[in-house]
Amino acid sequence: MGSGSRVLVSLCCCSSQLRFKSSFSASRVSSQMAAHSSSSSAITNPPSPSQSIDFLSICHRLKTTKRAGWLRKDVKDSESIADHMYRMGLMALIAPDFPGVDRDKCVKMAIVHDIAEAIVGDITPTDGIPKEEKSRREQEALDHMCRVLGGGSRAKEIAELWTEYEANSSPEAKFVKDFDKVEMILQALEYEDEQGKDLDEFFRSTAGKFQTEIGKAWASEIVSRRNKTK
Amino acid sequence: MGSGSRVLVSLCCCSSQLRFKSSFSASRVSSQMAAHSSSSSAITNPPSPSQSIDFLSICHRLKTTKRAGWLRKDVKDSESIADHMYRMGLMALIAPDFPGVDRDKCVKMAIVHDIAEAIVGDITPTDGIPKEEKSRREQEALDHMCRVLGGGSRAKEIAELWTEYEANSSPEAKFVKDFDKVEMILQALEYEDEQGKDLDEFFRSTAGKFQTEIGKAWASEIVSRRNKTK
Repeated sequence: MGSGSRVLVSLCCCSSQLRFKSSFSASRVSSQMAAHSSSSSAITNPPSPSQSIDFLSICHRLKTTKRAGWLRKDVKDSESIADHMYRMGLMALIAPDFPGVDRDKCVKMAIVHDIAEAIVGDITPTDGIPKEEKSRREQEALDHMCRVLGGGSRAKEIAELWTEYEANSSPEAKFVKDFDKVEMILQALEYEDEQGKDLDEFFRSTAGKFQTEIGKAWASEIVSRRNKTK
Repeated sequence: MGSGSRVLVSLCCCSSQLRFKSSFSASRVSSQMAAHSSSSSAITNPPSPSQSIDFLSICHRLKTTKRAGWLRKDVKDSESIADHMYRMGLMALIAPDFPGVDRDKCVKMAIVHDIAEAIVGDITPTDGIPKEEKSRREQEALDHMCRVLGGGSRAKEIAELWTEYEANSSPEAKFVKDFDKVEMILQALEYEDEQGKDLDEFFRSTAGKFQTEIGKAWASEIVSRRNKTK
């Protein structure tokens, strides 16, 4: 028991500051996947059981890594990255329909958007890491995870969801980016209530930055509840 | 700050042993929802911002409630109910296609199937609560959460996903039930590796109980990794 060698991927690939030696770029992943898509076998090409368990073992870190913003504010028993993405998934599930927005895709994007943090950790602006470097590390991590999955249609879907979110380049991405902020301020309000913390900076950093009507309405509801007892 | 009165729902409705005075039954929720579905306004009828935030506040408990099986085994820093459902969502996302199985529905069912535990907590066989009583409590909790959401199409979808899972009555339910077990034994293996625990009972309790080929294949892969170093 407890040999520490059975879930190899989680030990080999999950250092929070892992640097990849490979120069495998995001665009190369995308173009290789696009090439694969032209053959019918690669349209499904599911990951093998071994690849699947390797991938899911990497994702274990999303459950064990706490969100950095709360750690910095000394919040006790704070949420994991997975906890945060989980409630974003529920947000997508209960959101109203909007023309041109695929709600099922929003649910999937919500549970994928921070997935690269399983490898690079939750890098925040206070870490002093330039935005470009953060992006580069996350892209490399995502590429690695897609390779672990075998690069077939599942990896392609995950890469597309993640890339759209990062680029804010689809209607779904705009909704999920708003859910990201709404989830954060709702969690901030809950920690304020439960632990008497002053988490005003999380409300200030998101104020005026919501892109969708539902994001604005939900944020307004949360801020209104907060203001009622201040 | 910290008045404790701002997120009213989480304080009023989330006792882990909450008993509802209402005699509102599951079948009444279902029939009322079915009746609503016949009018076009109820097909969408999304929850209001206030209803949505009330619902999401109840769901906060899924992040803060740790899975009972690990607590009983003294696992340190063990996962939340949300963590568990989160990785099940990823399992649905990377699973191979099977004829007649709606993968997007599996993703949604994965993040919904334990949602009633936000109110009743994680009741396990060792708690000594009869199965029928557990079911009754969870059904009441689910009905309550659907009422909080306003009983429209979103509540109806959540109730349907949850009910199908509980009844094992659709192909998607069979897959997600397998993901539930696979996620548990993978997590057990990870805790064994990280903390030197003996979690053999979780492997024994699931052995031979997988309903799908992918569930069997993934479970076999996990058991095989475990056996390699025993």
